Amino acid sequence: MAAGTGQTAVTLYPVGNYNFGVKAPIIDKDATFEEALARMQQKYAREGARRSVEAVLLVHEHHHPHVLLLQVGSSFFKLPGGRLRPGENEVDGLKRKLTNKLAPEAAALKTDWEVGECLGTFWRPSFDLAMFPYLPAHCTRPKEVRKLFLVPLPEKCYFAVPKNLKLLAVPLFELYDNVARYGPLIAALPSFLSRLRFTLA
Amino acid sequence: MAAGTGQTAVTLYPVGNYNFGVKAPIIDKDATFEEALARMQQKYAREGARRSVEAVLLVHEHHHPHVLLLQVGSSFFKLPGGRLRPGENEVDGLKRKLTNKLAPEAAALKTDWEVGECLGTFWRPSFDLAMFPYLPAHCTRPKEVRKLFLVPLPEKCYFAVPKNLKLLAVPLFELYDNVARYGPLIAALPSFLSRLRFTLA
Ligand SMILES: [Zn+2]
Ligand SMILES: [Zn+2]
Ligand SMILES: [Zn+2]
Ligand SMILES: [Zn+2]
Repeated sequence: MAAGTGQTAVTLYPVGNYNFGVKAPIIDKDATFEEALARMQQKYAREGARRSVEAVLLVHEHHHPHVLLLQVGSSFFKLPGGRLRPGENEVDGLKRKLTNKLAPEAAALKTDWEVGECLGTFWRPSFDLAMFPYLPAHCTRPKEVRKLFLVPLPEKCYFAVPKNLKLLAVPLFELYDNVARYGPLIAALPSFLSRLRFTLA
Repeated sequence: MAAGTGQTAVTLYPVGNYNFGVKAPIIDKDATFEEALARMQQKYAREGARRSVEAVLLVHEHHHPHVLLLQVGSSFFKLPGGRLRPGENEVDGLKRKLTNKLAPEAAALKTDWEVGECLGTFWRPSFDLAMFPYLPAHCTRPKEVRKLFLVPLPEKCYFAVPKNLKLLAVPLFELYDNVARYGPLIAALPSFLSRLRFTLA
């Protein structure tokens, strides 16, 4: 295998290339974490482990790579994505979620999302908040498997952000090792991304 | 792109498949971190940024993935690897380092190392211990760039470990988030590996 093989090249464009608009809010089905947990348990009984997919969208600002994060309220951050339907494949499901969360209503302004490689996987062993980038020992029935995919952005496009959310471009050095603010998945993004070769256009 | 694309499949074999012997010690050129730093600075002036490569060798023990780490003294752990020579390519350099650190003397017992994909990269911005999985802002002249490569092991092989080192198989849950004991690179290995599909043979 040649030197540098496996290091996917990714071109990042300036954040100023993108247009950010607003659309109708997306209200979470569950008002509290307890409600979300109860619904997760009911669904697990019917459908088995939840399969979730999330997108890592990158831009650059004055030549530093930034990740696009959705901010919910004042202190909760998440990647765009969500749960797959039973039987739905990862790529179709992630495109559906991205369109739902970030695409403008006008068909002419919609992006044809390109789902790239898997950057990492997290497992939720129990019905609680803890997630790990490996299946813990002797856990044969995880409650959720969440995969993060690189979604390379086109040179320009339109985003429409639900009114109750904010879309932020956050630099890697802000995320790194910052589990307290961003949680273990988003804090691990700089590590997940470190194998790629960025070109800042 | 099809679902699951980019998730390299890796077969892990039981640790009991491998033979571990002993060979002559490899003594570090520098007795202290201060000496190492001084030498790094002199070399940087002559050759520019140090390029290092390290190998992630995996086995399984009672069906949990384990990483092979070299233990130096009682509390320092490292991946097998080292510095490239000026102009040396990453794959050749990593094979040379693996043979030097882990191969038996007898040619018939040597492994033909297969260097797989890059799992992650760390940058050292200054002449000190700090390393990051991204090039810090406005750091145009890093002092070291270190790349971690997956090196899939054959079903069976021989290792000869320098007498002054120990080779340990450490499970992912022991490494995860354990920066205090293993440092930021090794503690990030579970994240780096989470995009792979393991088959435990
Ligand atoms: Zn910035
Ligand atoms: Zn700047
Ligand atoms: Zn074990
Ligand atoms: Zn066990």
